[in-house]
Amino acid sequence: MSQQFDAVDVIGTKRDGGALSTAQIRWVIEAFTDSRVAEEQMSALLMAILLNGMERREIADWTTAMIDSGERLDFSSLDRPTADKHSTGGVGDKITLSLAPLVAACGVAVPQLSGRGLGHTGGTLDKLESIPGWQAELSNEAMMQQLNDVGAVVCAAGAGLAVADKKLYSLRDVTGTVQAIPLIASSIMSKKIAANPGSLVLDVKVGSGAFMKDLDQARELAQTMVALGNDAGVRTTALLTNMDTPLGLTAGNALEIQESVDVLAGGGPSDVVELTLALAREMLAGAGRDDVDPADVLADGRAMDSWKAMIRAQGGDPDAKLPVAAHTHVINAPSDGTLSSLDALAVGVAAWRLGAGRARKEDPVQAGAGVVMHAKPGDEVKAGGPLLTLHSDDEERFARATDILDGAWAIADSKESVPKPELIHDRVS
Amino acid sequence: MSQQFDAVDVIGTKRDGGALSTAQIRWVIEAFTDSRVAEEQMSALLMAILLNGMERREIADWTTAMIDSGERLDFSSLDRPTADKHSTGGVGDKITLSLAPLVAACGVAVPQLSGRGLGHTGGTLDKLESIPGWQAELSNEAMMQQLNDVGAVVCAAGAGLAVADKKLYSLRDVTGTVQAIPLIASSIMSKKIAANPGSLVLDVKVGSGAFMKDLDQARELAQTMVALGNDAGVRTTALLTNMDTPLGLTAGNALEIQESVDVLAGGGPSDVVELTLALAREMLAGAGRDDVDPADVLADGRAMDSWKAMIRAQGGDPDAKLPVAAHTHVINAPSDGTLSSLDALAVGVAAWRLGAGRARKEDPVQAGAGVVMHAKPGDEVKAGGPLLTLHSDDEERFARATDILDGAWAIADSKESVPKPELIHDRVS
Repeated sequence: MSQQFDAVDVIGTKRDGGALSTAQIRWVIEAFTDSRVAEEQMSALLMAILLNGMERREIADWTTAMIDSGERLDFSSLDRPTADKHSTGGVGDKITLSLAPLVAACGVAVPQLSGRGLGHTGGTLDKLESIPGWQAELSNEAMMQQLNDVGAVVCAAGAGLAVADKKLYSLRDVTGTVQAIPLIASSIMSKKIAANPGSLVLDVKVGSGAFMKDLDQARELAQTMVALGNDAGVRTTALLTNMDTPLGLTAGNALEIQESVDVLAGGGPSDVVELTLALAREMLAGAGRDDVDPADVLADGRAMDSWKAMIRAQGGDPDAKLPVAAHTHVINAPSDGTLSSLDALAVGVAAWRLGAGRARKEDPVQAGAGVVMHAKPGDEVKAGGPLLTLHSDDEERFARATDILDGAWAIADSKESVPKPELIHDRVS
Repeated sequence: MSQQFDAVDVIGTKRDGGALSTAQIRWVIEAFTDSRVAEEQMSALLMAILLNGMERREIADWTTAMIDSGERLDFSSLDRPTADKHSTGGVGDKITLSLAPLVAACGVAVPQLSGRGLGHTGGTLDKLESIPGWQAELSNEAMMQQLNDVGAVVCAAGAGLAVADKKLYSLRDVTGTVQAIPLIASSIMSKKIAANPGSLVLDVKVGSGAFMKDLDQARELAQTMVALGNDAGVRTTALLTNMDTPLGLTAGNALEIQESVDVLAGGGPSDVVELTLALAREMLAGAGRDDVDPADVLADGRAMDSWKAMIRAQGGDPDAKLPVAAHTHVINAPSDGTLSSLDALAVGVAAWRLGAGRARKEDPVQAGAGVVMHAKPGDEVKAGGPLLTLHSDDEERFARATDILDGAWAIADSKESVPKPELIHDRVS
C-alpha cells in the first residue's frame, strides 16, 4: 500500500496545470484499480490530463503504475532473443501476419499479443480466425512452448497484463478522453513493456485512416512511446507510416489472410512487402541480428514454412480453403486515367459496414467480408474496368458501403500529376 | 423529450474548444438528470467546461436547462413586490438575519431559500436553528402564507428547485470541478431564478475567507450572474464586498444571532450595519421602492418587530435566551498597538473546528460554538487585553482552533500605518 492522497487534490493539481508526483500517480492508479477512486473522479482527471498534458516523467510514472497493476511476462528462458511489434492501427494493416513468421524464421522469437478490431480498423485475431481451426486463446505456458518450437505466436492478450489499462480504456472510450497522447502512449506501452520483449518496433500510422491525422502529432506520440520503451529497458524504435490510403489491395479478414500468404509466397502488393521488410529489419536490429537479410528469408520460402508451423501450432490448417463471401458488388471506373486518391478511412468504414468489423465488442464478424482494391493511387485505370469489389454475406449491406465510398476516390487525366505516395515518412529511435 | 445527441460528441465539442449548442445543452442536462448520461461522462464534460470555458449564451442555456429540471415558484398573488438576496459565502456573514426583516418592514416581501453550512462558512439555517423552537422546513403553501402575513421568510430550499443542480453539485464536489465561473454562476442563478423573485441582489465576496480570492475573478462572476438574472427577467444587481477579514465581531451560530439582534436594536458593528443598509437599498430599488429609507426603518424599531414576527411564524421564541458554549478560551494581545490584519479564512476555520460548522452534510453543529473578535483591523489593542474569545462545548477543540489562528493576525505600532479596509469594492448592474 503506497502513501494516501485525496482524489480531489490530485485532480486539482492537474486541473491547475501542475505536474503529478510519482507517489500521486502510483496512488491514483492503484486506488482506481480497486475502486477507491471513483470512475467520475478518474474521468475528470483524464480530461484534465488531455487538456493540460503531462511531462515525460509523469507519463513514465503513469505507465509504470499501469504495468505494476498486472503481471509481467518473462521470456528469459528462451534460447533466442525476442522482438515485438505494435501498430497504432490502420486500414488493410495485415503486416503482423507476414512479419511474425518472417522474423521468427530469421532466428528472433516474436510473441505477439493481439486484440480484436473495433470500428473501422480490423483486428489481427479476427483475420486469423478466418483460417479453419485456428485458436486465438493460449495459456502463458502454451505460448512459451510455441515460441520455443516455432518462434512465433500471435494470440489473444490475457487479462493479466496492465489490469488498470483495461478499466481506464473503457472509461476513456465513453468520456471523450481517448485522444490524449500521454494516455495513448501509456496505454500501448504499459501492455508492451509488461509483455517484456527484448526489443520493440512501433508502426505509428499517419493519415485519414489512422488515429493520428497529422504528422507532427504522430511524431510526438512516437517519440513519447520510444522514450518510454527505452527507459523501461526495451530497445524501442518507431516508423511513421502513411495511412492516407489502405495498405495493400485488400481490407477484410480472409481477404487479408490470402494477401499475406501471397507476400509469404514471394508475391503480394509492393507496399505490404516494403513495410514488412522495413519493420523486420528494425526488429532484427533491435535483437542484435542485423546480420540476417529478411528479404532472403522471404524469397527462399523459410518465412512461409514458419507461417504454416505457426498456424498449425494453434490448431489451424494453413492449406484449407479460406471462407468467401456469398455476394460481391463491383464499382467500375467511370473514365480512363490514373487513380489519384483512395481514402483509407472510407475503405475501412466500407469494409466494416460490409461485415468485416464490429461496432460493439460482442458483435460477430464475417470472415469473407471486405473490400478488394483493383488499383492504388498512381495506378492506371480504364473506363468500365473494376475499381473496387465489395464482398459480403448480406446483399443489403452494399448500399451503405457504396454510400461511404462515394467521393472517396479520384481519377486524374494524366499520370504525371499523381506523385506516388511515400510509404515510410520517418524513423524515430 | 428534446433532440437526441451522443454524450461523447457533446464532450468532444467542449474538449476541442467549441461552443455547445442550445439543443446539446438542453439534452445533456435532461439526460444527466435521468441518468442516461453517466456521472463519469458528466464529470469529463465539467472538467472540459472548467478548462475551456463557456460563452455567455452557453451559460444562459445551461442555467435555463437547470431551471427547467425543477419547479418554479410564483409570488404573483402577493400584494407586494418580492426581492431576494444571495451571498457567495463569507466568515461572519450574518447579513440575511437583519436584512430580510428590514426589507420586509419597508414593504417588500423577502422569500429567502437558504442552505446549511459546509466547511469554514456558516449556514444561515444553522444560525437560526440556535433559536429555541425555530423550524427551517416549510411547505410552499406555508411559505406563501408567511410572506403574506409577515413579509419575510428564511427557510430551507425544497428539493423541487433546479433538480439537476443538486445532482451536478454533488458531482462537482468530488471531481475538483467546483471552481468554474460558468458552473458557479449557473448553479446559483438557476436556483434563484427558479425561486422567481421580482428582483435580486448578489453579495459577491472577495478575499481570503471567500471562494473568490481575487477582485477580477469576483467581478467576472458578478457580471455573469447579473446578466443571467436580467436576461431571465429578474432585475439583478451585485455588490463586490470585502472578505479579507470577517464581517462583524462574531463567527458562529447563536453568537451571530445575538449580533444581528443588536443590529436590529439599533446597535451592532458598523460594517454589518453598513452592508445591511447597502443591500437593503439595492433590494428596495430593484422592487421600485427607493422612496423608503431603510435606515429609518432600522432606527425606529419596525425592523425588529418584523424580525420577531418572522421568528415566531416559524415556531421560534425571539425573546428566549440563546444557547451558550460550555467553555471559553481567550487569546490576549501581546503588545499595545493597532490591529493591522485579522484573516477571515483562519477565523472561519477556527469557528468550524470549535464546532460551529460541519465537515460532512450529516454532521451536527454546536449552537454556542464560535469566535468573538474584540477588535477589527484599524482598532487599537492593549497588551494583555483580549483579542479573541473562543467558544466551544468541547475543551479539547481549543488546541486545533488556536493552531489555525497562530499568525492569522498582526499588530502595528502606529495607527497611521493601518488603512481602514474598504467594505464595498464595487457595484455591478
